[in-house]
Amino acid sequence: MKKWLLTAAIAASFGAAADEGMWQPHQLPAMADELKAKGLEISAESISKLTEFPMNAVISLGGCTASFVSPKGLVVTNHHCAYGSIQYNSTPEKNLLKDGFLAKTYAEELPATPGSRIFVTEEVTNVTDKVTAGQMDKIGNEFYKGIELQQKTLVAECEQQDGYRCQVYSFHGGLEYYLVKQLEIRDVRLTYNPAASVGKYGGDIDNWMWPRHTGDFSFYRAYVSKDGKPADFSKDNVPYEPKSFLKVSAKGVSDGDFVMVAGYPGRTNRYRTADEVSNQFGWAYPEGKVLQERMIDIIKETAPEGSDERIKYESLIAGLANYAKNFTSMIEFYGKSTMLAEREKVETDLANWISKDKKRQQQYGETLANLEKLVAKSQQNQERDILLGYIGYTTMVTTARSLYRLANEKTLADMAREPGYQDRDMTNFTSSMERIDRRYAASVDKALLADLLTRYAALPAEQRIVSLDKAFGISNKFDANALAKTLDKMYANTKLDDQDTRLAWMNKSVADFKASNDPFIQFAVQTYDADMALEKAKKQLEGDLMKVRPQYMDAIIAYNRELGKPVYADANSSLRVTVGNVKGYSPQDGLMAEPFTRLEGLLAKDTGVDPFDAPAKQLELIKQKQYGDYYVKAIDSVPVNFLSTLDTTGGNSGSPTLNGRAELVGLLFDGVYESIIGDWGYDAQSNRSIQVDSRYMLWVMKYLDNADNLLAEMDIAK
Amino acid sequence: MKKWLLTAAIAASFGAAADEGMWQPHQLPAMADELKAKGLEISAESISKLTEFPMNAVISLGGCTASFVSPKGLVVTNHHCAYGSIQYNSTPEKNLLKDGFLAKTYAEELPATPGSRIFVTEEVTNVTDKVTAGQMDKIGNEFYKGIELQQKTLVAECEQQDGYRCQVYSFHGGLEYYLVKQLEIRDVRLTYNPAASVGKYGGDIDNWMWPRHTGDFSFYRAYVSKDGKPADFSKDNVPYEPKSFLKVSAKGVSDGDFVMVAGYPGRTNRYRTADEVSNQFGWAYPEGKVLQERMIDIIKETAPEGSDERIKYESLIAGLANYAKNFTSMIEFYGKSTMLAEREKVETDLANWISKDKKRQQQYGETLANLEKLVAKSQQNQERDILLGYIGYTTMVTTARSLYRLANEKTLADMAREPGYQDRDMTNFTSSMERIDRRYAASVDKALLADLLTRYAALPAEQRIVSLDKAFGISNKFDANALAKTLDKMYANTKLDDQDTRLAWMNKSVADFKASNDPFIQFAVQTYDADMALEKAKKQLEGDLMKVRPQYMDAIIAYNRELGKPVYADANSSLRVTVGNVKGYSPQDGLMAEPFTRLEGLLAKDTGVDPFDAPAKQLELIKQKQYGDYYVKAIDSVPVNFLSTLDTTGGNSGSPTLNGRAELVGLLFDGVYESIIGDWGYDAQSNRSIQVDSRYMLWVMKYLDNADNLLAEMDIAK
Repeated sequence: MKKWLLTAAIAASFGAAADEGMWQPHQLPAMADELKAKGLEISAESISKLTEFPMNAVISLGGCTASFVSPKGLVVTNHHCAYGSIQYNSTPEKNLLKDGFLAKTYAEELPATPGSRIFVTEEVTNVTDKVTAGQMDKIGNEFYKGIELQQKTLVAECEQQDGYRCQVYSFHGGLEYYLVKQLEIRDVRLTYNPAASVGKYGGDIDNWMWPRHTGDFSFYRAYVSKDGKPADFSKDNVPYEPKSFLKVSAKGVSDGDFVMVAGYPGRTNRYRTADEVSNQFGWAYPEGKVLQERMIDIIKETAPEGSDERIKYESLIAGLANYAKNFTSMIEFYGKSTMLAEREKVETDLANWISKDKKRQQQYGETLANLEKLVAKSQQNQERDILLGYIGYTTMVTTARSLYRLANEKTLADMAREPGYQDRDMTNFTSSMERIDRRYAASVDKALLADLLTRYAALPAEQRIVSLDKAFGISNKFDANALAKTLDKMYANTKLDDQDTRLAWMNKSVADFKASNDPFIQFAVQTYDADMALEKAKKQLEGDLMKVRPQYMDAIIAYNRELGKPVYADANSSLRVTVGNVKGYSPQDGLMAEPFTRLEGLLAKDTGVDPFDAPAKQLELIKQKQYGDYYVKAIDSVPVNFLSTLDTTGGNSGSPTLNGRAELVGLLFDGVYESIIGDWGYDAQSNRSIQVDSRYMLWVMKYLDNADNLLAEMDIAK
Repeated sequence: MKKWLLTAAIAASFGAAADEGMWQPHQLPAMADELKAKGLEISAESISKLTEFPMNAVISLGGCTASFVSPKGLVVTNHHCAYGSIQYNSTPEKNLLKDGFLAKTYAEELPATPGSRIFVTEEVTNVTDKVTAGQMDKIGNEFYKGIELQQKTLVAECEQQDGYRCQVYSFHGGLEYYLVKQLEIRDVRLTYNPAASVGKYGGDIDNWMWPRHTGDFSFYRAYVSKDGKPADFSKDNVPYEPKSFLKVSAKGVSDGDFVMVAGYPGRTNRYRTADEVSNQFGWAYPEGKVLQERMIDIIKETAPEGSDERIKYESLIAGLANYAKNFTSMIEFYGKSTMLAEREKVETDLANWISKDKKRQQQYGETLANLEKLVAKSQQNQERDILLGYIGYTTMVTTARSLYRLANEKTLADMAREPGYQDRDMTNFTSSMERIDRRYAASVDKALLADLLTRYAALPAEQRIVSLDKAFGISNKFDANALAKTLDKMYANTKLDDQDTRLAWMNKSVADFKASNDPFIQFAVQTYDADMALEKAKKQLEGDLMKVRPQYMDAIIAYNRELGKPVYADANSSLRVTVGNVKGYSPQDGLMAEPFTRLEGLLAKDTGVDPFDAPAKQLELIKQKQYGDYYVKAIDSVPVNFLSTLDTTGGNSGSPTLNGRAELVGLLFDGVYESIIGDWGYDAQSNRSIQVDSRYMLWVMKYLDNADNLLAEMDIAK
């Protein structure tokens, strides 16, 4: 309880930090006055209660956020969050991506892509004491495994209740732990999506960019069994009736208005040390960018445009390109920023503050130095580690390793297994083995692996791994031809490219693997011990970090409390609330990004060529100035997207952006290019989130797609 | 006089057209009230008087505008207007372009590039009656030549006075003619230029772009003989003492302030017919862009980067690239505009108006149809004509033709010669023959000519010219190898690549040419008659157009007068005044270009790599926030460049931008990308001129370059 009080107390000084902060809902009541002054009309208390309006309407899709917008389980999220389901239901004859899709009745709704889930957060419990009980005397690997076991135990206990998925989240690097219990709805159906030429308008070119004109929204519906319980897909299932849902605002927001977002931001790094920042921006991002761009080149060279192989790798190319763009922005804006100097100053100030008090000296005197030692240790083999990491993008190596790991883990009791290999993980595991057919081509996989291994072979011998060297015939005198021959043989002889074979391996024993002559299975067996030794060393280090980083965070929190500065935890995919305002920004001296874009901007951008190829009907509606109910005088048009100061990151996609009455005024779907570096530090001048305006969503639904049934089902606030 | 009254009367209704319009100074008094209301503090009457302040301080450099800013003939213009002189005085040891240049005394000033001139407009006289007297019954070629002779006679008369240069300008396509008499100062010296990393900051990348941070200014000084008369360069010459000069404002302007520009805009096409617009944007610009880009490719292929040949062609590449960018913008914004529909509507409205009145029917009933017939005729061979035009960019063909033409023209009395071949043109002619050495490489010239001739050879036989075909051995069955051989031989054997040879040919007779065995001279002789026939046909058409277009303009003027709309003449390199305001614009939905850029923007843009490589001292001054006397609170910095609604075009470069008291508040140097199409129609939403802020100029002079001597010499308005 101490920690809870601590963070809550700090949160009370919230006003100072403007719009920075991804707050845990329980922190909000302490900042009720500030929120009210900012424009919150409902009580801060109500937002802190997860099973009440509005928070029980905010749900997770796992990786994306969504919200209930009708009493019959209608769910709105981003088009890009529903993309897989739209693609899954598309055929050359009935292309839902291209033409859009609208179910006029429940019966017309289509099953979402296999594995789709809706998670409704019902309980968040501080389990710090339970997780750490009896563990604090352990160190390194023992500590790591002890904490992990406590977490698994709590999760297993929590998941006893049918239809629930539970998880323990670590906050402040292990200073606090919270158990999150979520209803897991397994029957998810696609209800409505606009055409990709609306929902993905601007495509990858506009990704992270402003001005923006993307109708990035789609609708799902949650189904449960007749008795209201989560169930697998069945014709007999009925729409889920959420305890509450969000009204959708037809009035929207204006420049300067208060807004807030509830959602599941994935990961930020706001409290990393100067050493970590310097290494990340000075080495890890540039190195990662080189590897990503090289991998893209290799895929494109090996799988020419139009080939079957290329189709299989389009999503990996898109993913790598997305990261490369992200890293490019990181590097660019870090170069322009004073981030490192600021971090160094914070550390100096913190050290001074610690040195001025005997008790603090005892408590934190060694903390930063210890942390820095561990950080340095973690970077020791990073040239190798990054390559091993990217080898994880290749398929055959990874598949063989996962399968053999599974065989080994299965020799243990379920609770003793590595997360990812427990019984509760087997649905996901199976899906991952099935997915390979659509995403694998031996030629590309081989080319990628050859390139990464060539880089690996250039490492000094002491960094390399003996068993890995042996498996691929790598020595100090690297022979590219020999490696090529080895790989040719391995890819020619493996049977792991066959789905049934892969699935069959899921049920085989360690002995079966050892007896196999499949070259990739042999590889996995040969390198297993070394892999495990590496993993153990990593957990050893991780366990040490899990001891020191909480101390460091504790010092930071205590120091900031004295300064009257609030502390929120780094994002960790748990439910958070952020508050801010509708506001433009200056992307460059002499330019201002205005807070709203307009229908006319879409018309001006349109070239008729993907991704700037809005439907002819839409262009005609705009030409005719058919603004209908959603005309806004201030901009003499219908607003399409808007900017806000909200502090968000990946995972927030699909989050409802709410006004002071908790009505949905927008759907968060992106941040501007200048705010990508925001994951490392929020800058009030340039940190901007991008939302689809609710008025544009309603305009598209009403005038373009005639989704009258859904408009009637929703509660539109006028 | 009638015409003068007409335009003046129309100008009185000026208020309606906001900031559109390049006004002849004599039109201003009629709009005195509107100008006063807009913010003009000095009298409109005073601006109309060319020999009084402020107009007598506004001068032409021929292609650029400039102004006197001290009683001792100090002249300020754009860095890019003085570029040739800076380059001319640069050596590897003393690189004025790179390091900048400041003469601390008169003695240190350097001669401008040969041929540099300063023209001070002293008289503008309406000579319509004189030019057209006795000509109106002629048609076609006879009319063209008649008008030309009248003009030449007026010019010769005017230039009787020593030290003057005179020219007759046609307005409204020949509706009015004005004789302009300018003092021609021939001793021009370079006084001060900032380093190119200030004066050309942003280079070609930022050309036509906003935001902008270019210190595009430099200083000349005008010198005359001791008795105050224009004279060739001499040590004994003394600084020219202008009758008046402009004060330079240290206070500058704010968003929304009134500004005006006086200068010499080159050419606009605001009154072209719908047919002309459609052909220009649908055919001529796209075709021109193809040729420009192809020529750039050929030069780059033939003259690799770093080669001597490449250095000789850098300025042609830059020129072609500049045009290609211009044409690209033209095509892009035409595609987005409703220009054609608007022109068509204007023509329909005009036709309706004409048809409603018998007298009008008699006067203008056939005008548009006649004009359209002539326009169609002028486009008949445009595929050929554009190629012949671009062949004009090659050197050997053009040089041989000019020289042989000169020999032929010299058989005539001076007054009977083609303009460009009169005695008064011989200085220029000689310079052009001398310039070739620095801009010619046979390999490149041959490659360009080969490509253009290959395109020419693909034309249908009836479009081709028999003598040209014969000279290059072109037939219906084109043989690229044969052409290559022909050209190889011609370039190998010509002596025209030698400067002395070229200059010697200037004094030879037609018979000498006919007797020559220089292959390019032979070519010129062989094709001369056909060239002359083509030129005659062109003049025939031009003469017809010079009859019809004035009628058309007369109709437009009369019609607009009824509508209460002002009419100004298209730009024609004569002195004009435009008025407007400091104002930003929206380059794209969701973005606003702000009216001022700041020193900090320069810092943010700087990469250390040309063209974003400001001097280290400047970056340091900015980092230290050394704003000095020029700090502006509203932008918390020193303004660098600013935007205005002023209606300007090429030729306006270097124009003084003035406040209501006619103090210099900026130097016009560019327009934004969206306003390139403004040459065809002014759009109040997007037509923006870009100025160097006078405060930035003074800041650079005072804190970066320590040009205290010039600051002391100028009259700074505080």
